[in-house]
Amino acid sequence: MSDFSFTVERRLDGALGRAGVMHTPHGPIRTPAFTPVGTKATVKAVLPETMRDLGAQVILANAYHLYLQPGADIVDAAGGLAAFMGWHGPTITDSGGFQVLSLGVGFKKVLAMDSKAQRSDDVIAKGKDRLAHVDDDGVTFKSHLDGSMHRFTPEVSMQVQHQIGADIMFAFDECTTLMNTREYQERSVQRTQEWAVRCVAEHQRLTEERADKPYQALFAVVQGAQYEDLRRQSARDLAALPVDGFGIGGALEKEQLGTIVRWVCEELPEDRPRHLLGIGEPLDVFAGVESGADTFDCVAPSRNARNGTVFHSRKRFHLTNGVYRRDFSPIDETCDCYTCQNYTRAYLHHLFKAKEMLASTLATIHNESYIVRLIDQVRESILDGTFTELRDAVVGRGA
Amino acid sequence: MSDFSFTVERRLDGALGRAGVMHTPHGPIRTPAFTPVGTKATVKAVLPETMRDLGAQVILANAYHLYLQPGADIVDAAGGLAAFMGWHGPTITDSGGFQVLSLGVGFKKVLAMDSKAQRSDDVIAKGKDRLAHVDDDGVTFKSHLDGSMHRFTPEVSMQVQHQIGADIMFAFDECTTLMNTREYQERSVQRTQEWAVRCVAEHQRLTEERADKPYQALFAVVQGAQYEDLRRQSARDLAALPVDGFGIGGALEKEQLGTIVRWVCEELPEDRPRHLLGIGEPLDVFAGVESGADTFDCVAPSRNARNGTVFHSRKRFHLTNGVYRRDFSPIDETCDCYTCQNYTRAYLHHLFKAKEMLASTLATIHNESYIVRLIDQVRESILDGTFTELRDAVVGRGA
Repeated sequence: MSDFSFTVERRLDGALGRAGVMHTPHGPIRTPAFTPVGTKATVKAVLPETMRDLGAQVILANAYHLYLQPGADIVDAAGGLAAFMGWHGPTITDSGGFQVLSLGVGFKKVLAMDSKAQRSDDVIAKGKDRLAHVDDDGVTFKSHLDGSMHRFTPEVSMQVQHQIGADIMFAFDECTTLMNTREYQERSVQRTQEWAVRCVAEHQRLTEERADKPYQALFAVVQGAQYEDLRRQSARDLAALPVDGFGIGGALEKEQLGTIVRWVCEELPEDRPRHLLGIGEPLDVFAGVESGADTFDCVAPSRNARNGTVFHSRKRFHLTNGVYRRDFSPIDETCDCYTCQNYTRAYLHHLFKAKEMLASTLATIHNESYIVRLIDQVRESILDGTFTELRDAVVGRGA
Repeated sequence: MSDFSFTVERRLDGALGRAGVMHTPHGPIRTPAFTPVGTKATVKAVLPETMRDLGAQVILANAYHLYLQPGADIVDAAGGLAAFMGWHGPTITDSGGFQVLSLGVGFKKVLAMDSKAQRSDDVIAKGKDRLAHVDDDGVTFKSHLDGSMHRFTPEVSMQVQHQIGADIMFAFDECTTLMNTREYQERSVQRTQEWAVRCVAEHQRLTEERADKPYQALFAVVQGAQYEDLRRQSARDLAALPVDGFGIGGALEKEQLGTIVRWVCEELPEDRPRHLLGIGEPLDVFAGVESGADTFDCVAPSRNARNGTVFHSRKRFHLTNGVYRRDFSPIDETCDCYTCQNYTRAYLHHLFKAKEMLASTLATIHNESYIVRLIDQVRESILDGTFTELRDAVVGRGA
């Protein structure tokens, strides 16, 4: 039997957003919630207990990275991801679908571009520098670590994710780019649906085979790029499967974020949770929540922090800027995070200039605290009926 | 008036070692004590509160590094070193003497070599790749950061260290190498004595001028390399000065460590503390304590940790070794540190292989815990009369 459930506590008036609780074998996740990313079974530069202290409820790791290093069998032998990394709370793994495909050189650039720049699918698929090749059965890809060849299929992704043992995992999906043609997106959505069906079957087989392990929830990923009919069709088709929840993935233009999430969530059943993959910029979160997303993950808080860019209730800024050399105020006077309570901009500026690891640690603590707390406030505002006021205040100040 | 004092609690029978307490404006240091090194106002990769949790009582930073970056005036404006780095306990700065001199290429290599390989002082002093030049008034050196030229004199060192504001600071000394001739060592010991006299005068002037700041204790540094008469003379001459304590510095062969510390401590007054500079390998600590040293500092625990080498009650080992890939035991079963209580060798092996910053953090916590705890045990053994048993047990197992 499933040890996973989701309860809706309160809905927004006239919108799809809601506050709720996911129950997992490693504890509850109160939603909306932000999921810090710990790609290789560690949130870079921060101890797991510090992540807990700052309010993180759940960590997302990448199946692709852990499959290559240390190997999913090692994580399994350690007792699963949470035990392996010393994080005694809920965890999520993505399917590896995005990573195996995004290794193709140029893919990341394409993802960020707009839909008007479509190229021939052939050009995208056959780029000589591309490290991954998709067929109807799965994806063959080259390790970014040692160049060795590997193959992920829906079944392999399920096997790897069962070994990693996160509380929530995702069905293996094809992640396209905005430059693919309409014809390719249609074929790809169909392929992702067929892969989800195979994932469900393999997941059920593995759940029985590994009945002594905690139950892992399976979320299917809605694709369809910027096309309303494809997004709705994808959501409806996946909703018919016996999955525990849904991911919303793939190519989208930021301005379209709220609209696309709304299309999808209008089709999805209300009693199952929805995770918006790879989104976590403060302003995007409001659009996502309002349109029905429950959880979010994003590397931005951590990656920005390591580059010296810190979030601020008015405007983010770069700690390496010389103006902070003698600035003995905290990053944000209004922030109650460990970093702002104990350190000055001048000290952080020094640590970044001196290339000290503690610079990344302290800046990451601040940025993750900022986004975790913001989404906690969003949750509270839904529960007490003040979401619109909070949204207008935060979006208005442009943080 | 001085806010610094030292009390001896118990002496070893038939040896110079003792347990005691130094009282500083930022709290007590119970000795013997190990001083973790935080070169640039941070123990690399570890939060100050984690250092406190693992039992560190005091942190040593480098005046040379902080003078260059961020600048001693910044640390002063921040309220001094302890406030700047968020470490709310006792701190020490070295004088910069070792750093400005050790920048000469080849110097570090020479330090580790033996006294049989003496070269002409001219060859050492005039190496074209040397970045520092000593004269009787001070040292002119080139910044390792940007190549700019700087000059430290005893007065400048005192001014810089007063601005940094550590509880304990060291007189500016000339650090020689074992390859210098006997004649050079004689001249150098005399120079270090003259510089100590100038440091005392400048220290007294600055203490009056900055009477609103917490008192900073001044320790004079005994030099003399491997020569008994020079070491004893240096100690006697410095003991005549109104300094709060002493450093034991300079070139020495490891096998001679205990002997040289004994020569020095036999000459030094019993009521003032003695710090053995740059020494902290477990076995050296026993020799140092027995011969009369009260405190120690060393980068070894932290530097080893970042390279993946961890201390162990039997034999240190390298976490990057493939044999630890599936080893789900802690670094040391007998260790109660945060790392050993929460993480496996397999996880640490993975973090090192994946080049994750947390690898350095967790390994450093273990190594610093190991050495801090070992010296705490040494202290306890002096207080309860079991030093010899502890020494024989630890030295016997060769840790």
